[in-house]
Amino acid sequence: MKKDQILLAHGDGGRLTRKLIEEVFARAFRNPLLEPLADAALVDIGGSRIAFTTDSYTVKPIFFPGGDIGKLAVFGTVNDLAVMGARPLYLSCGFILEEGLELKMLERIVDAMRESAQEAGVRMVTGDTKVVERGAADMVFINTAGIGQLLDWPSMGEVPEPEDEILISGTIGDHGMAVLVARGELEFTTPVESDCASLWGLISELHRAGIGVKWMRDPTRGGLASALNELVLNQRFGIQIFENKIPLQQAVDSACEILGLDPLYLANEGKVICVVRRGEGESAREVLRGLDLGRDAQIIGKVILEPKSKVIVKTSVGGTRILGMLAGSPLPRIC
Amino acid sequence: MKKDQILLAHGDGGRLTRKLIEEVFARAFRNPLLEPLADAALVDIGGSRIAFTTDSYTVKPIFFPGGDIGKLAVFGTVNDLAVMGARPLYLSCGFILEEGLELKMLERIVDAMRESAQEAGVRMVTGDTKVVERGAADMVFINTAGIGQLLDWPSMGEVPEPEDEILISGTIGDHGMAVLVARGELEFTTPVESDCASLWGLISELHRAGIGVKWMRDPTRGGLASALNELVLNQRFGIQIFENKIPLQQAVDSACEILGLDPLYLANEGKVICVVRRGEGESAREVLRGLDLGRDAQIIGKVILEPKSKVIVKTSVGGTRILGMLAGSPLPRIC
Repeated sequence: MKKDQILLAHGDGGRLTRKLIEEVFARAFRNPLLEPLADAALVDIGGSRIAFTTDSYTVKPIFFPGGDIGKLAVFGTVNDLAVMGARPLYLSCGFILEEGLELKMLERIVDAMRESAQEAGVRMVTGDTKVVERGAADMVFINTAGIGQLLDWPSMGEVPEPEDEILISGTIGDHGMAVLVARGELEFTTPVESDCASLWGLISELHRAGIGVKWMRDPTRGGLASALNELVLNQRFGIQIFENKIPLQQAVDSACEILGLDPLYLANEGKVICVVRRGEGESAREVLRGLDLGRDAQIIGKVILEPKSKVIVKTSVGGTRILGMLAGSPLPRIC
Repeated sequence: MKKDQILLAHGDGGRLTRKLIEEVFARAFRNPLLEPLADAALVDIGGSRIAFTTDSYTVKPIFFPGGDIGKLAVFGTVNDLAVMGARPLYLSCGFILEEGLELKMLERIVDAMRESAQEAGVRMVTGDTKVVERGAADMVFINTAGIGQLLDWPSMGEVPEPEDEILISGTIGDHGMAVLVARGELEFTTPVESDCASLWGLISELHRAGIGVKWMRDPTRGGLASALNELVLNQRFGIQIFENKIPLQQAVDSACEILGLDPLYLANEGKVICVVRRGEGESAREVLRGLDLGRDAQIIGKVILEPKSKVIVKTSVGGTRILGMLAGSPLPRIC
């Protein structure tokens, strides 16, 4: 494979994705609103502060334990708004359909989208459908874009400082493992369901409780490790996380061991990472645990002064290692 | 081909597209904001009136005379906002890339998007990239969503009445014919360029001039005929258009004759249809003609009382025919 071609790894949410975004997209579209390269852009329209985001969904298989492409397309975009501290309001959807797709399958996907939108409290207000000839797409791809209204949340965007606390709202790697198993290419099955869910409930509770949240991110492609690396990139602080604090389902742990995968790099679709002001970690954890979706919430680490721009893991056996962004062994079409 | 499968014609912008939207999408997502099934939804956020729209682009070939998929992806979405009477402000873009795509090709597309965004006065503020394995997509698909701020334009949305005048801003069918020729499957070539352009300049001039515009639409897939049919659908009025008033390039006319195509059904990507209050047609035409993009603008017809819900064409030889929505012989991947 040549260096001047698009590789699967350009889409894995790790190092090459970042490189492509910075060198091709961000360079061309350079403007202060795009600059943060966050999950959603914050824009002002007629005095209203709005979050705006988009994601395309190409997950394979289309249906998997715990969800399907439709549910993912709604919750994924809802979550990108919610983690920016915005109330998700309206979604668009653009379908690319392959000629010959069973209408029943499309209806099942659309039903899942309807239910998910209802659950997340958003309305699907505009859409588009394209059909391409057999073999020009793989069944169905969905794009959703979303707009939300920014909450008044003064701590959001504050620069993280040493001793600020880092939480995750539950077990990691569930979505990535569920999709890998659903592909049927592995020599075992394991009862792992995708965690695909709307984070708006958890996040609005944190807001209501007045928790001093500075930064949130849903660790999708590239997993927890890549999301934390994006946080520290070019920053004057680092992050230390404690391996034994990271919530992990037994089934995901075992499957990762068999496959030689690190759960820290597996995709999640219903988890949020929060950085909260020092001293507020326990209150935040209690708020998260108050909802079923956050029952396994944990304080997993803290902001540190040195080493800067690095994510350090304290391992269960007492050592430390540097956690980089995902690089190599891409898992394509995980979302 | 079975009836319970997606057909190419489900994506041609005609009768089957409408059926799919009504029976699958609109039924599932039923809400008053989606109901109008217009080019963009009008929503309220914190007191600001906003237009929100999306389109996916799958045009084949990716580069064609007069444009490429990137230019199309920017102007197409800008135009969907503009025809709703909204100033286009921000765009998102979602790329689906096929593994192996030449990076140079992607850069060329992104450059075209940057130039087009600048020309239309919009900013690309958020995006997403997915990569699928070879054979799972055809090179590159792009989705753009857009948000714009609704202009204060009191006549917009008024119900058309008899003698209201109908204009088109220029020659029809240029985009559709340019793409068909660029595919290289025809036995002739003809120097037709796509009309791919931002309509915001024309539309903001109409607004500035205080023209009583009631309805606008850019006649893309399905062409002028399908757009006018959407206007009269279930309405208590009809439309009469005069065939000899419709601007048509000689090259498009000849090519249509050879191919047995009706230019009224060919896609346009830089034309706007306007319904203006009776007596304002000539002023509107002069405003449009004041800009290069509108130099061929014409008053092509009027609103009539009977027959209701129909589009009637007065032919050059003095007869009349009913013009239906596009049905059959779909032209896939025209945009």
